[in-house]
Amino acid sequence: MSSARAVVLLSGGLDSATTLALAVREGFEVHALTIDYGQRHRMEVDRARALAPSLGARSHRVLHLDMTYPGSSALTDPGIPVPRSRTEAEMGSGIPPTYVPARNTVLLALALSWAETLEARDLFIGVNAVDYSGYPDCRPAFLRAFETLARVSTRAGIEGTAFRIRAPLMDLSKGEIVRKAVELGVDLSVTFSCYDPAPGGTPCGECDACLLRARGFAEAGLEDPG
Amino acid sequence: MSSARAVVLLSGGLDSATTLALAVREGFEVHALTIDYGQRHRMEVDRARALAPSLGARSHRVLHLDMTYPGSSALTDPGIPVPRSRTEAEMGSGIPPTYVPARNTVLLALALSWAETLEARDLFIGVNAVDYSGYPDCRPAFLRAFETLARVSTRAGIEGTAFRIRAPLMDLSKGEIVRKAVELGVDLSVTFSCYDPAPGGTPCGECDACLLRARGFAEAGLEDPG
Repeated sequence: MSSARAVVLLSGGLDSATTLALAVREGFEVHALTIDYGQRHRMEVDRARALAPSLGARSHRVLHLDMTYPGSSALTDPGIPVPRSRTEAEMGSGIPPTYVPARNTVLLALALSWAETLEARDLFIGVNAVDYSGYPDCRPAFLRAFETLARVSTRAGIEGTAFRIRAPLMDLSKGEIVRKAVELGVDLSVTFSCYDPAPGGTPCGECDACLLRARGFAEAGLEDPG
Repeated sequence: MSSARAVVLLSGGLDSATTLALAVREGFEVHALTIDYGQRHRMEVDRARALAPSLGARSHRVLHLDMTYPGSSALTDPGIPVPRSRTEAEMGSGIPPTYVPARNTVLLALALSWAETLEARDLFIGVNAVDYSGYPDCRPAFLRAFETLARVSTRAGIEGTAFRIRAPLMDLSKGEIVRKAVELGVDLSVTFSCYDPAPGGTPCGECDACLLRARGFAEAGLEDPG
């Protein structure tokens, strides 16, 4: 019997790699999708290329898309500084300048297009409400609204397919994600999280992504091999 | 006083050119967005480059994006024939093979991303339910679901911006669209509609898009200059 298919958004970071491993463990035939949208941290894209086959993806597609609108986000406009050394309280208040306008809407739309072609019903995304409460497009309300949209916007949807947006990390702490990744055999040395690495690719250690990753490893009582 | 901004999806066809002209006439500062997604009829993209400034767009952005998944659509996979010489009854029944999975979801997501950066609230799209009843992502239910999504998926949305998906051609016949275009001074000789032009760029005259365009000019009692 052939497995049901799933499309998994894979950035190359810790969260999306763990999400992919969870989808494989659940028995899906996994098709990984990486979007190079012009982010500073596109080191992640190379890591995604290494991670997808090693985690058991059946196929991996990398799409290039220029989302570098001037003034839109610290992740795509070098003129906007990436915040550094923020406290947990600072991270928890408001939407950070690293928010990329409608990014996850674009990513899920592209995943939906491919999923419909593959006759996949499940779309996995590694969003996490605890750590990223600042991003509107990481919240359950967003995922549910996207499911509603997918039902009316696609041939499969109006023919009866109820697309499911799966976010298995939604309620986990960063420490729980690290432990889950280790349990699933994810090679964490390949994952890459920094928003603003040095030219040679060294993580800055000070952006929100680096700080949250460090907190996760600390919570899990493990050393970061990355 | 500066005008409100709008993002208008511009394919280079008759409908989107007329939509852009309507947005300009309504007083918006118009920013046109064209997506080259790998469609056979990318002749349209060149036409869009000519149309945007001539119709009064303040800026025009062309994004390249590879949506040519094998097997997905007759518009992106040369292995799937574009239907020819279909009757109105045939066009009116079911979803045609020219449907591109989740295409308008992807296009509106990209328009939303740019709109949020520009602080625009209005997104214009040239969909038309009468002619294209076969496409799920041309229906009012789709547009309303996208507005709901935009409210929860963006910073602007959760801060109170109610994005509006504007489809001013929704209830017009093709003949009414041609008349509207002429009234607005759209140079219809530049617009391009054919799904599957000959290598030199000559419209096939037999695909649904060519047939609907011909019907529109006939209804309007005008000769097609395109």
